Amino acid sequence: MQTEACVISVGMTRFHHKIHGDKTSRELFIEAADEAVATIDKGIDLKDVQALFIGYFTPESFEHQGHIGALMADWFGLSPIPAWRTESACASSSFAFLSGVLAIASGWCDLVMVGGVEKMTNRTTEQVTDALAIAADDAYEIPAGATFPGLYALVAQAYFKEYSAEWEQLQAIPIKNHHNGAMNPKAQFQSEIIEIANNWGARKNLSFQEPVEFLKSSLNRMVAHPLRLFDCCPISDGAAVAILASEDFAKKYTDTPIRIRGLGAGTDTLSLHDRTSLVSFHSTVEACRQAYKMADLKPKDIDIAEVHDCFSIAEAVATEDLGFIERGGGIKAAEEGRTALNGDIPINPDGGLKCKGHPVGATGIGMIYEIWKQLRGTAEKRQIADAETGLVQNVGGSGASAAVVILGR
Amino acid sequence: MQTEACVISVGMTRFHHKIHGDKTSRELFIEAADEAVATIDKGIDLKDVQALFIGYFTPESFEHQGHIGALMADWFGLSPIPAWRTESACASSSFAFLSGVLAIASGWCDLVMVGGVEKMTNRTTEQVTDALAIAADDAYEIPAGATFPGLYALVAQAYFKEYSAEWEQLQAIPIKNHHNGAMNPKAQFQSEIIEIANNWGARKNLSFQEPVEFLKSSLNRMVAHPLRLFDCCPISDGAAVAILASEDFAKKYTDTPIRIRGLGAGTDTLSLHDRTSLVSFHSTVEACRQAYKMADLKPKDIDIAEVHDCFSIAEAVATEDLGFIERGGGIKAAEEGRTALNGDIPINPDGGLKCKGHPVGATGIGMIYEIWKQLRGTAEKRQIADAETGLVQNVGGSGASAAVVILGR
Repeated sequence: MQTEACVISVGMTRFHHKIHGDKTSRELFIEAADEAVATIDKGIDLKDVQALFIGYFTPESFEHQGHIGALMADWFGLSPIPAWRTESACASSSFAFLSGVLAIASGWCDLVMVGGVEKMTNRTTEQVTDALAIAADDAYEIPAGATFPGLYALVAQAYFKEYSAEWEQLQAIPIKNHHNGAMNPKAQFQSEIIEIANNWGARKNLSFQEPVEFLKSSLNRMVAHPLRLFDCCPISDGAAVAILASEDFAKKYTDTPIRIRGLGAGTDTLSLHDRTSLVSFHSTVEACRQAYKMADLKPKDIDIAEVHDCFSIAEAVATEDLGFIERGGGIKAAEEGRTALNGDIPINPDGGLKCKGHPVGATGIGMIYEIWKQLRGTAEKRQIADAETGLVQNVGGSGASAAVVILGR
Repeated sequence: MQTEACVISVGMTRFHHKIHGDKTSRELFIEAADEAVATIDKGIDLKDVQALFIGYFTPESFEHQGHIGALMADWFGLSPIPAWRTESACASSSFAFLSGVLAIASGWCDLVMVGGVEKMTNRTTEQVTDALAIAADDAYEIPAGATFPGLYALVAQAYFKEYSAEWEQLQAIPIKNHHNGAMNPKAQFQSEIIEIANNWGARKNLSFQEPVEFLKSSLNRMVAHPLRLFDCCPISDGAAVAILASEDFAKKYTDTPIRIRGLGAGTDTLSLHDRTSLVSFHSTVEACRQAYKMADLKPKDIDIAEVHDCFSIAEAVATEDLGFIERGGGIKAAEEGRTALNGDIPINPDGGLKCKGHPVGATGIGMIYEIWKQLRGTAEKRQIADAETGLVQNVGGSGASAAVVILGR
């Protein structure tokens, strides 16, 4: 398949744990969709939108609401067009994106809207942990007491053992992501870790010279050994939207569409205990294999990437699975600055899930948002010069599903 | 778009409220998928399956489980292929079917598996009512006390008023559907209503000559005026699967593929109070407009149809929205036998949701199952002679979404 589809516009709410108050998912979606509509260079008539695909992981748990496709089509004034929801845990909106590409590549539609949303903060942390646990296996993992920090802690332990790495080295990843996110006006936290450290420390008459001092202190509390609070992404509300069009149709709306050059998706066992290795996600390996093949590109051809750092260790594994960094080198690459904004392969220029936030159903298209901005040269302070090709990798659960999208100017 | 896709096989569990016991959705899915694999004329290697799309309305509520695409791919041995879940309330698996068609029509895949499942009976009736209510609007309808029988009761009241019809006439629909379902070995109830009437009556020393006597009696209890128990589909467990291939690829597997001639989908307001009329579903009208156009067919060209009779009144409305019967004539058509197996346009030859059962996420592909059997001439006692073209209409909620698929020999 050649996709012959482009991203002509994007929109996104800020991802945040407080500012959206009791706004519902429909209000968040409308805010992101309004921005996407307003961002189209030559304007658009909403009647041109022929279908809507929405990712939302678990609206049942968070809002006692289903039927999300129809709901969002109704509230954004798009009915009677086709609309449905896609779900694949934390990768839910990547599958809305893939559905939109298939709708265009098949010739069914010329222009579609795709989006993702999650409203999480109207539940307690314990309720959120329980709601998200359904991305793991309720027949085996959840009854055994597993939660997602615990599952990714197993990945970290396996990785540390396999490659003789240490937790302190791993901290290069959240430190880098907070550095990037501090320059992103849509990020949940817009601070370097050292700033947060000294804010928190001031209350206890502590001061820190280096972020690692803080990260090793009891202020950065243990969540699931060896993962501490700053190894974990936060709970967030948010929505993200993209508008896709066929290459021909796109010309009506913009002179600088961003091309969808490749895509892929993969799956793996739902339970970690069924895997032969925890230091690589087969789903990512399969998804990027398909995407590189479709785009006729190799990892070295990618200029920037957004990867799924729901926990710090996941970013290290992703950079290796995607072929950017050699096996076992994922943490060291961050330490050496190879994944920094000015490195060989900048990873998570927007701050990643750790700093930008992770409203799970919105995350996949939130990553597309950043790559689109970068490729259009509009990423402001965090702009990477001359970025021509960018990749998004979005993971469901502990890697039972993954999607990869490659975009190019 | 020309779909250039075919259905090469189908499989389905019996839909039932008891026999599946505490089988989980993954076990139900495997049973249906096994049948679909075994039904392929020339056999198949599972490695030929390139993607999996699964409809399941609310696994969060019924099984505290999400990530259904990856789960089913894992348990049926299909990983690492792409897999995700689609949701649009009671039409969820029709959107898995549409996703599968788009995957083929785009050239992304040559052969895919699509399925639907719902495990409902491990919850109490009150819990099921609450779980299904999320297909309606939780911001407006649910807090006002609405449940689905209540919403469809409003549709019935509006219809009776608009067309001066009466509840007693409406009973022709469930009577016909039980007549058909009594010949369907996959149906939940395999009895004519008169048989059930006299079974139930025997416990109270009552006997009935005509089904309507029973339906008017207190044994057929009021659910939401004017809808009584036999106006409502039951709660069911079940799964259904179809295997789709491109026309070229299909030749490897069968000499008699069933062609997907047209498809469409539509949406409407989520809340009934936002509609201008309750006697027609705009979502169905839009979905069939698209499907007839793609297939280049008119309603009179359709030989048989499966429509979404979650409540008896919904079948009357559907037959009109699809253009089979004139406006206001839906109930009368059933009374006159025009929708019977030997009528002008046989509707719900498998017993419909009322008699066959309604495991909501499985229903859309359960309808495809019946049309496929009919077009292949393998529907046994309920076979409609020389059926060449069949239509499926599957509705989400109280009509906020709908999908239509037209199949042909």
